[in-house]
Formats: sequence, structure tokens, C-alpha cells
Amino acid sequence: MTLITSPANERLKQVRLLQRQSRTRRKQRRLVLEGVRLMADAVSAGVLPDYVLHLPDPEQAARELIERLSAQGVPCLAVTPPLLAELFDTETPQGILGVFPWPALPVPAAPGLVLVPDGWQDPGNLGTLIRTAAAANVDALALTPGTVDAFNPKVLRAGMGGHFRLPLLWSDWDRLPEQFPDLHIVVADAAGDVSYEAFDWTQPTLLVVGGEAHGPRQRVRNLPHTTVAIPLARGVESLNAAIAASVLLFEAQRQRRLAGR
Amino acid sequence: MTLITSPANERLKQVRLLQRQSRTRRKQRRLVLEGVRLMADAVSAGVLPDYVLHLPDPEQAARELIERLSAQGVPCLAVTPPLLAELFDTETPQGILGVFPWPALPVPAAPGLVLVPDGWQDPGNLGTLIRTAAAANVDALALTPGTVDAFNPKVLRAGMGGHFRLPLLWSDWDRLPEQFPDLHIVVADAAGDVSYEAFDWTQPTLLVVGGEAHGPRQRVRNLPHTTVAIPLARGVESLNAAIAASVLLFEAQRQRRLAGR
Repeated sequence: MTLITSPANERLKQVRLLQRQSRTRRKQRRLVLEGVRLMADAVSAGVLPDYVLHLPDPEQAARELIERLSAQGVPCLAVTPPLLAELFDTETPQGILGVFPWPALPVPAAPGLVLVPDGWQDPGNLGTLIRTAAAANVDALALTPGTVDAFNPKVLRAGMGGHFRLPLLWSDWDRLPEQFPDLHIVVADAAGDVSYEAFDWTQPTLLVVGGEAHGPRQRVRNLPHTTVAIPLARGVESLNAAIAASVLLFEAQRQRRLAGR
Repeated sequence: MTLITSPANERLKQVRLLQRQSRTRRKQRRLVLEGVRLMADAVSAGVLPDYVLHLPDPEQAARELIERLSAQGVPCLAVTPPLLAELFDTETPQGILGVFPWPALPVPAAPGLVLVPDGWQDPGNLGTLIRTAAAANVDALALTPGTVDAFNPKVLRAGMGGHFRLPLLWSDWDRLPEQFPDLHIVVADAAGDVSYEAFDWTQPTLLVVGGEAHGPRQRVRNLPHTTVAIPLARGVESLNAAIAASVLLFEAQRQRRLAGR
């Protein structure tokens, strides 16, 4: 078994950059998945890593994954424990990581529901949203400037594999309305005009949910749109952004199921 | 103005213990709120702090809160910046904290919806749930052993004031069914028997949602109950616990509003 012992190893250098810099991730169209669970999710979605780095003596679950990937021709390389440890973003690394190509799931030609988390800064929130949006059958997630990088290690971790199940696209407010001219723009707003349960979610919808600190930006507000609100009791002013988005997404799914969509 | 300069000051000692130890919080029935926003939320809910500690030269919003509380007879004491900084759990402290009595909102005599987050370990998740449950008009939140302390600093922060708007009670699985004999026990379960939208949430309900790592414990499973599921697309196995609970709570609210409750 080869053992990587030099910090100057090219693969270690690549992983370090990918973990730290969104521009390296974007340029190389690569991301790092840590731990058996996330890696296995990507593999089961049909994406193979470029290579795998692991402890010289990995745990049972990691060993099984390594055997499986080695059999498919993926280079799996052992790294000395201290060198490997510094590559992880997690505090409790599981002793294995993989460098993966970006997922490339196609956006449907006539989507029924596209979600835009606009200006989300919290990686945990965005990751949780990606996990939820995959489960709620959202057709695509559109990422706009000002939102944290979806392939940031913390977003990937909170996403729990959702990144490989949900079509993702990158756009901005100049292009989005042109890309989806048939979608009705709906903006989540605690002071919105329509209660979310009264809104007809069976129409093709582009749902915009702003980040915690700021609502959706003026650029969105200038486009024709409907604002929808979730009624809040006891003078509570707002919900966590991922919670608000989830309540809306599952109401949309409920209505679509009722309508046989 | 008095300025606390000694680390041995009794109030500083008390805050240190309250921040670190749930048993001190329980024994003294006190908690620490950090920052203007959380403190003002508690004050507006009718709870005054025992005392306030702040920077010698606080920011405008903190200064206004100090003036208001001083006028109501609350001791507000300046602390040297390094001594105050070490009392905060947050990385970016706002230069003010208060020691508050526990909230004591009464549980309604005939509650329609009691929520049990069973075995929740993640403080951010529990805090987000408390914020959401307050907004979703839950009648009471029942805390069981094995769930992180609701007055842990991280839970308080994510709760965004929900702790002071929602009745909280502490119980266990020996007592809970006796405390609420009229409630129908509903367990959230990804493999549940009834789809959550088909369940009749207008009946008095004790909703149990298990933590991420484990579902609700066997002790609950042995009681008569209904399991409800949120349909998940694309082979996603589960939702984040706070997200799942929120989807269920707002569906319950939607049905109750429809029924005029």
C-alpha cells in the first residue's frame, strides 16, 4: 500500500485548496466530501470520485467503501493520520474523504417549482435547505450571488447528500426571469399579501426566500411578483429561513399531490 | 459608575456557572441572556433580569436598554472588557448580558397540541424548534430526559425569544401520559402509517419528534400511538428534526385554522 507522507503531495495540496477556496472549487468544478455517509450518497447517485484519501487503518465502513471504489478503478490512497486530519473541515473526521466532480443533474425543461435562497449566508441553513428541497421534490435550486457557496464543506455536510439529488443552477437577477419566463415569482415575506395556504402552488412557481438578516433584495422586488406569508402567533416576527422555506415547500407538495401532479 | 474589575466578583462567578452548568441553572432557576435582542424579547414578555452586566462604554441600543432597566430598579453594572468577554458564549458578544429568572408561562388546562422533542442533542435544532413552536401556536413544549438543556446558551440564542413566548414543562415518559390523558399520541416517523396531511390534527394531540440520530425511544413506542410520515421524494431518508417538526406543526395550524380553532 502506498502511504502519502509528504505535505507537499499534489493531491493533498489540491484538497487543501478545495476545502478553503470557493474559487478553486469553481475553477476545477470539484468538491470534497468527508466521511463514508456523504461519499456513499454521491456514489449511489452515480458520481465517482477522482480519488480517495484515507487513514492507513480505516474503520470497517470506510474499508468497504474503499474496496468498492478500488474495484471501480478509483485511486484510494492512505495518508499519515496527522496529514489527513488537517484536510478535514469536521472536528470529528471519519478518516476518509474523496474529491468529486460537481453534480450535474439536468434542470427539467418545464419546471413546476424552482427555489431561490436569496442572500443566504449561513452554511448550515443552506445545507439543510438543500436536503429539504431534494425531499420536497423541488425541480431546481437557483443560486444567486450573495449566497454562501453551496459546495462549502459545512453546506455539503448539512446537505446530507441532497446536493446529488437536486438539480442546482447558478444565475443572477438579470438572467433568472429570462431563464424561467413561464414561472410566477413568489416572494416569502412575513408581511406578505397572501397567506401561504391560500396561494395556488399548482401553478409553475419561482419561490424566493431571503436570508435571515435581509429579506429578498430590491432587484427581486422590482419584478412582478406575489408576496406570501406564513401566519405567525404570539408576536413572533420571523422564522428561521430554512424553516420558512420548508413549510412553503411542503405546502406546495401537498397541494400538488392533491391536484394529482 | 461602579466598575467590576475583579474576576472573584460574586456576580461574575454566578454568570460563569450559569453559562457552563445546566445543574446550576436548574438549582437557581436562572439563565443568562446575551445581547440586546434576546434581553429585550424577555423584557417585553414581562420578565425582568436580576441584574445586567455590560461594557463600560456600551453601544447605543445597549445603553437604551440599560437606562430602561435601571429606571425599573434593575442593577446594571459595568465590567472591564476582558472580564466581560470571557462570560459570553457567543464569539461576537454585543457587550451586554442579563441574569434572568426562568420563564414560567402557564400550560393551558386543556391543551390542543403539546410537542415533545424527544432525545434532541443539537442545541441549534432545539432552539430553532422553540422559536418555531412559539410561532406555530403550540400550547406547550414538554422536555424529556436525554434532550439538551433548553436554557443552554446556544439553545437560547437559536430560540430568538421563543423561550419566553411558549409554555415549557419538564417531564418523562412515566409521567407524560398521565399528565395529558386526553391527548392522542402521534409519533413522527419517516416510515409512519399515516401521511401527515391525512391525519386529523384538530384532535387534541401530543406530538413526539425524535432527535436526528435516534427516533423516539422504545418507551414511547410501547404507548398507544399513531405514526405519521412526511412523504419524501428522491430516496431522501429523513429530514432534519427541526424541519420535520415545523412541517408537522404548520400543517396542524393550517387544519386548525380551517376548522376555526
